[in-house]
Amino acid sequence: MKPIVLLLVAVASVASLVAFTTTASRQPNGEAAPIFGIKIFPRYRDWRLVSVAHEEGTLNDLRAILGNDIAIKAYREGKLPFPDGAIIARLAWSYVPSEENDKVFGRRQSFVPGPQPEWYLQFMVKDSKKYAATGGWGFAQFDKDGKPADETKLRTCFPCHEPIQARDFVFTQYAP
Amino acid sequence: MKPIVLLLVAVASVASLVAFTTTASRQPNGEAAPIFGIKIFPRYRDWRLVSVAHEEGTLNDLRAILGNDIAIKAYREGKLPFPDGAIIARLAWSYVPSEENDKVFGRRQSFVPGPQPEWYLQFMVKDSKKYAATGGWGFAQFDKDGKPADETKLRTCFPCHEPIQARDFVFTQYAP
Repeated sequence: MKPIVLLLVAVASVASLVAFTTTASRQPNGEAAPIFGIKIFPRYRDWRLVSVAHEEGTLNDLRAILGNDIAIKAYREGKLPFPDGAIIARLAWSYVPSEENDKVFGRRQSFVPGPQPEWYLQFMVKDSKKYAATGGWGFAQFDKDGKPADETKLRTCFPCHEPIQARDFVFTQYAP
Repeated sequence: MKPIVLLLVAVASVASLVAFTTTASRQPNGEAAPIFGIKIFPRYRDWRLVSVAHEEGTLNDLRAILGNDIAIKAYREGKLPFPDGAIIARLAWSYVPSEENDKVFGRRQSFVPGPQPEWYLQFMVKDSKKYAATGGWGFAQFDKDGKPADETKLRTCFPCHEPIQARDFVFTQYAP
């Protein structure tokens, strides 16, 4: 092979390796989050939609909140507290303008998901016995490479959710 | 019953009737959209997430884009053009600040879905033969009561999607 072809092959190989590592690292057999012992759930990206949101400020993201079957059923039936086994996932993407969309709309107005931010993924897992000390919920947070947040960070989750005790400590409401 | 109780019962009955009517009207046995003959698909709210977005301007909404199994598979495999049978749904909600969330964050930054806007629901349906004149896609739009948009409105869909022919006329990309 000519040097340029060799170089292209090398670049392509590194690119696929990086792509594979990134994908693989967000698999469920990764590291568990501290305190609550939660790992990334398999196929969470297939869960159904609870709602969407936009956070300004330092977060500056667009987010989707998904639920497993138990969570979605409870949401739709307005059932509180959530039953054991309910899991809610929060996915976030950086908030970027879409020039492509804006061109069609004829003005700057469209914002879409960009790259994943540092803290891409969060879970709330309902287990009223195991997580009795934190309202029956276990909390987990993973970065875009699938690495869990440390104990100090996870200890901040429940205090923030405490004000919303009336809705079983869950902020997100179901978008009809 | 005392008059005040009677009044409350009457108000509650009207409220449930309105709630029932609103839910029932978005069922799949409603009116078909003109030109393309598309009705609201059963269980579209159970479809998996493609992406999310925020539109400013007169739309001023938060939106979720969902796909049926054929569409999600094509998106994940990066397969273009989309195969026949792929359906993409766009759901929108008005863009409202969440005081509840802002209180926890300590600043105004959180925006969540409010009531459904007038044009709550859109579909793109791939059928390369049936919809050959419009890039293989049929378009439908329904208001929050499940009533389809008229012919004049639907004729504006494809011209807007034409610039994005390179991605088979679909603007929304899959959020990883």
